[in-house]
Amino acid sequence: MSKVGFIGLGIMGGPMAANLVKAGHEVVGYNRSQAKVDKLVADGGKAAATAAEAVRDADIIFTMLPDSPDVEAVVLGEDGVLANAKSGALLIDCSTIRPDVSRRVAEAAAEKGVRALDAPVSGGEPKAIDGTLSIMVGGDADAFAAAQDVLGAVGTTIVHVGPSGAGQTVKAANQLIVAGNIGLVAEALVFLEAHGVDTEAGLKVLGGGLAGSTVLDAKGGKMRGREFAPGFRLELHHKDMGIVQAAARDAGLTIPLGSLVSQLVAAAVAQGDGKLDHSGLLKQITQLNGRD
Amino acid sequence: MSKVGFIGLGIMGGPMAANLVKAGHEVVGYNRSQAKVDKLVADGGKAAATAAEAVRDADIIFTMLPDSPDVEAVVLGEDGVLANAKSGALLIDCSTIRPDVSRRVAEAAAEKGVRALDAPVSGGEPKAIDGTLSIMVGGDADAFAAAQDVLGAVGTTIVHVGPSGAGQTVKAANQLIVAGNIGLVAEALVFLEAHGVDTEAGLKVLGGGLAGSTVLDAKGGKMRGREFAPGFRLELHHKDMGIVQAAARDAGLTIPLGSLVSQLVAAAVAQGDGKLDHSGLLKQITQLNGRD
Repeated sequence: MSKVGFIGLGIMGGPMAANLVKAGHEVVGYNRSQAKVDKLVADGGKAAATAAEAVRDADIIFTMLPDSPDVEAVVLGEDGVLANAKSGALLIDCSTIRPDVSRRVAEAAAEKGVRALDAPVSGGEPKAIDGTLSIMVGGDADAFAAAQDVLGAVGTTIVHVGPSGAGQTVKAANQLIVAGNIGLVAEALVFLEAHGVDTEAGLKVLGGGLAGSTVLDAKGGKMRGREFAPGFRLELHHKDMGIVQAAARDAGLTIPLGSLVSQLVAAAVAQGDGKLDHSGLLKQITQLNGRD
Repeated sequence: MSKVGFIGLGIMGGPMAANLVKAGHEVVGYNRSQAKVDKLVADGGKAAATAAEAVRDADIIFTMLPDSPDVEAVVLGEDGVLANAKSGALLIDCSTIRPDVSRRVAEAAAEKGVRALDAPVSGGEPKAIDGTLSIMVGGDADAFAAAQDVLGAVGTTIVHVGPSGAGQTVKAANQLIVAGNIGLVAEALVFLEAHGVDTEAGLKVLGGGLAGSTVLDAKGGKMRGREFAPGFRLELHHKDMGIVQAAARDAGLTIPLGSLVSQLVAAAVAQGDGKLDHSGLLKQITQLNGRD
């Protein structure tokens, strides 16, 4: 069992920290809003008043934060994670951020004798609660091996995909495909509706053939019914598409479909739909077509 | 058991006709190239020298032809299907064609006392051979009920999606999603390769999350290995995207992602890749990026 410091106890981080407690680890948690820390204490964890306090005695440090600047501030900042972590500690950043920032964090960690992994997750709140997340891990093989025990407490598909930043690169590819698949299902649905087709029967037969996808299964029915309660918010997917676009540009790549769906997501957010589930991209496609 | 006339004994129609024979139906087949007719006779069917001869005594008539003009010529043409079919016969067109042509065929059939269904299929050659196709059917409920027995000999997922043309509309939506999903997997793969990620591990973890799809499962590994033997040829998917675009325009719709992927498919065909499997769209994405 390990001493774990956990920073960022939100929708995803909260249940992940609780699952680490359940697995028998000693978890000290920190979050900006005290209510989330109180929840962890109720779940059997310990409270820290600062990030520094959460990581000072930890063998393993988890961070689960919204965006690249948050990770830079909390990990690299004055009195942050690296300023206070023990030499030999293992930092596992589960945030979805830019791959270049993950690489920079790993380099800064190495200078302090701290090993670092980027380990973004997929599966959303339900799988965070169930401890069945998919985790795409970048970093050294030794560090990946050392993380097996704690990652096994929060996820089931745990795959080492390459060196530092590679986890973020795969997560970016994930978000590119997911946004595109949502956009395509949205276009297909509007197309079927406009032609007066029975969309329940239509989606059923589409799901059984080569057009089948996890997006179609998980979101198709709700999209038919215009149920857009999150789930994963469009404004976060918009942030992630910024990461996709920047990482493509860094590698000198053009991604035509990824770029177009990024623009559609950006338009949805610009028009005030950022708090909807990302399947709410359907609204953008219907509005473009002057439909409801 | 029914007397079946079957016109179009190609990659898909050949095994479908053979499965009808296996199910105990009396199948009389016609194809322009005699070798395909000989194959049906070897499988236990009968040969017809003309389309007229194939349909003259048939209770049920199948057509499985490449494109809209072929169906118009064979079904509506002088000495074609409708000129020779018995009153009360049931015409099941499994070709993938324009929905408006399917509606026109159904109207012309009704004038001759022939019921008609549009029943395009999904699943490709393997599922045609296994008799496990997905079939999306447009037409009257009575005609759909009358077709259950013969359709059950060639497919397993058989869904009535609406009136005449609705089957083609759903097939068009299918082809829109499939082309888009192939394009997105291609962009994700080039993105991962450019960043030096282990793509085998990457595709594995993508397939386990919200980015999972039948395209990713069925085509991802072959795309990694640049194995583009058909399968379903890009030139046929290009034809189908023309149907998608025309049907969208007819309904007054804009489909941004569908339009873009249509252009990418068109470019692949223009550059001589029309005989490759549709997953060969990856070549277009790699070439756009100056990569192999």
